[in-house]
Amino acid sequence: MAINLDNFFKSMGENSKMSDFQDLNHIDGVSVSTTCADLYSKKRDDVVLFYFRDGANYASVYTQSKLISENIKWNLKINSKKVSALLINTRNANAFTGTDGYKGLKVLAETLSYELSQKQKNDEEKPKKIEANEILFACTGTIGENFPTEKIQKSIYDLIKKIKYTQNKYIWMKAAMGILTTDLKPKIAMEECYIGNKLVKIYGIAKGSGMIYPNMATTLGFVFTDATIPSAILKQLLNNNIEKTFNAISCDGDTSTNDMVSLFATNKVSNKKLKNSKDKKLNEFNSALFKVLLNLSKRVAADGEGASKFVTIKVKNCKTEEDAKKICFSIANSPLVKTAIAGEDPNWGRIIMAIGKAKVNLNPRKLAIQIGKIKVIENGKISLTYNEQEAANYMKEKSIDLFVNLNLGKKEFTSYTMDLTKKYIEINADYRT
Amino acid sequence: MAINLDNFFKSMGENSKMSDFQDLNHIDGVSVSTTCADLYSKKRDDVVLFYFRDGANYASVYTQSKLISENIKWNLKINSKKVSALLINTRNANAFTGTDGYKGLKVLAETLSYELSQKQKNDEEKPKKIEANEILFACTGTIGENFPTEKIQKSIYDLIKKIKYTQNKYIWMKAAMGILTTDLKPKIAMEECYIGNKLVKIYGIAKGSGMIYPNMATTLGFVFTDATIPSAILKQLLNNNIEKTFNAISCDGDTSTNDMVSLFATNKVSNKKLKNSKDKKLNEFNSALFKVLLNLSKRVAADGEGASKFVTIKVKNCKTEEDAKKICFSIANSPLVKTAIAGEDPNWGRIIMAIGKAKVNLNPRKLAIQIGKIKVIENGKISLTYNEQEAANYMKEKSIDLFVNLNLGKKEFTSYTMDLTKKYIEINADYRT
Repeated sequence: MAINLDNFFKSMGENSKMSDFQDLNHIDGVSVSTTCADLYSKKRDDVVLFYFRDGANYASVYTQSKLISENIKWNLKINSKKVSALLINTRNANAFTGTDGYKGLKVLAETLSYELSQKQKNDEEKPKKIEANEILFACTGTIGENFPTEKIQKSIYDLIKKIKYTQNKYIWMKAAMGILTTDLKPKIAMEECYIGNKLVKIYGIAKGSGMIYPNMATTLGFVFTDATIPSAILKQLLNNNIEKTFNAISCDGDTSTNDMVSLFATNKVSNKKLKNSKDKKLNEFNSALFKVLLNLSKRVAADGEGASKFVTIKVKNCKTEEDAKKICFSIANSPLVKTAIAGEDPNWGRIIMAIGKAKVNLNPRKLAIQIGKIKVIENGKISLTYNEQEAANYMKEKSIDLFVNLNLGKKEFTSYTMDLTKKYIEINADYRT
Repeated sequence: MAINLDNFFKSMGENSKMSDFQDLNHIDGVSVSTTCADLYSKKRDDVVLFYFRDGANYASVYTQSKLISENIKWNLKINSKKVSALLINTRNANAFTGTDGYKGLKVLAETLSYELSQKQKNDEEKPKKIEANEILFACTGTIGENFPTEKIQKSIYDLIKKIKYTQNKYIWMKAAMGILTTDLKPKIAMEECYIGNKLVKIYGIAKGSGMIYPNMATTLGFVFTDATIPSAILKQLLNNNIEKTFNAISCDGDTSTNDMVSLFATNKVSNKKLKNSKDKKLNEFNSALFKVLLNLSKRVAADGEGASKFVTIKVKNCKTEEDAKKICFSIANSPLVKTAIAGEDPNWGRIIMAIGKAKVNLNPRKLAIQIGKIKVIENGKISLTYNEQEAANYMKEKSIDLFVNLNLGKKEFTSYTMDLTKKYIEINADYRT
């Protein structure tokens, strides 16, 4: 297929190059299709369908918000062991849309399950009936606007028509783009690893941008593997890895009503049977999954609304991981720290402020702070080697690392965020206009 | 004294008019003086002295940060029952300045107490020796820069030379201006009330701007009364009133290392002896004090960095006040809500988001939201009378009221904040340059 990649990107109106991304290709058991349901005034793919022709085991983590969207409510009620499809729409969060929003999903699930059952009859040797109860939904966009059930319903026929049983990097890229809202870049990650002697794939896409703050995570993330892994083990693997990946990022301290990260296994690779998530055969898979989730999370933080810099905050030697995490997020969510970073100002006094307000007991005399490799505070005092000009030069980097060391224990946490720029205000003051 | 008020303001480089403020005049037992200690590159008054010639009873509340400035450490060690002076400097927070910063305060306290003792000998019939232990300090400005002890020490002579025993509105205005950092407007408030049959005054000044988030409060606030009230009762009165005033405002969710609100009583009015803070004779004083503190707090929020709008958030009918407070601050600190307000967009979905992430148990079906007088959500659904254009018109107002009603109990809380504008980023990305 002789497609010019850069033209392909240009045609999607994106300012990135295909070579910036890993190449995802075929993953057995997953079909990806995207189309335009006219949810935006501008033409773009705004609905994405993942279809599992033989079903998939799955696990999800959802937002911890006390006001959750209708699709999250729907997903929480799914009691089928396997799912057959995941339908994602952008532009409308289907949150605070009341019973109409929920009924809309029912209509979509019925249409989709019926049409997919028809497709099964045409394509499969042993067609199975697909139930509404096997459809998951992800929605993202504005809260409180009427859910565009009809437009999405109409798009289902096109989505199904486009289903192919062999995937390539273009369709993954289209899917990664189709789920974006105010994100500037698609987010894609992949790893391959062995379970026993079987090579398996782990592919993921995500979207983020605003309202990026953990508990659970943030944003939307969808990860697929061709390995054979029961849902219960997927759940454990996802829970174990979410804390230091999607739950470690924050863009603005705001949490969405719609956050969702799901992990699907198509069971196409017949690896050996697994006992539980601690099974040694899963060691490699576990760390590959962590890599995919971390890669996606970092891309979400780096592309946070208005971001000009990616910021990594590592808090070390705390009494508890909870302490380390509190300080991490106190820094990551501090508008004063984030604006200083935007201004390329090594204003470490604001880091001090953010540490102080985190309500973690500490000994100021043991505190150490480092900006990149530059020691700023040692034993609670300005380091003798600290040179502000050197620090100011470092702050010009695109990727900034901040280290805080309490010297009180052995626990640590790392969080990821971005700076706070005028662009963030522009994007969010004018979001709906 | 024929001073042109507007010229007076213009000479201070301020864009406000004297008529925007209440007139504070003489309060017996307090002398106010201000001068320029050259702490800024530009000439301005940057040190302010409050001198109590016969001492003052006092009470203070301080920041809840785990990393506190050297002057807060100093103040916490003061064990004298009466204080004789309060010295305030801007530009330098004296935080994370180590032992040098603390020693600097000792030098200043010794100089100031010595010079004030000399003044006592010259001016008073029964001169008393003023001790270093009777001096309070407030500092505000950049964290982590060397404390300019020498410059401030030199300014003490001028501050003392300028002490007058009769105060007028100009000197209070100069003091209110002398303590500002990035604030645009001085903050002044006053009330008069009776304790028994004695009329007493309550005068206050404050500064705020950034790092405005409670626990305690925020910012600097100094309140003076000529009433006779023991320190223990002042402490109770301050604690009772701080929660719904200085602790109810938030500009950016950041908490300073230096926050401090103090209440001083000069005992010049011989009102009847008071039993405790619940003494009925204090009812009027208590509500007048609340008014002064609330007035100052609102001025701090309204003048939050980059603010273009003042926002009042009232959360009603909660099970506990703590629940109401959590939701209040979740909204007040949400960058997405605050940018929507800056954009004059009635994006109530973001209010929903902020309510949801506050971790308060609620019943979505009972939820009601109002923007100004406009009903947006009733019984968890969009109000039938809701008209987005009407809401958009309301959002153009300078002062925005948001109401959230959980309909679950009887407790409520009100918080005050401002919108989040590009100006905030400008101020804070370039603060030190």
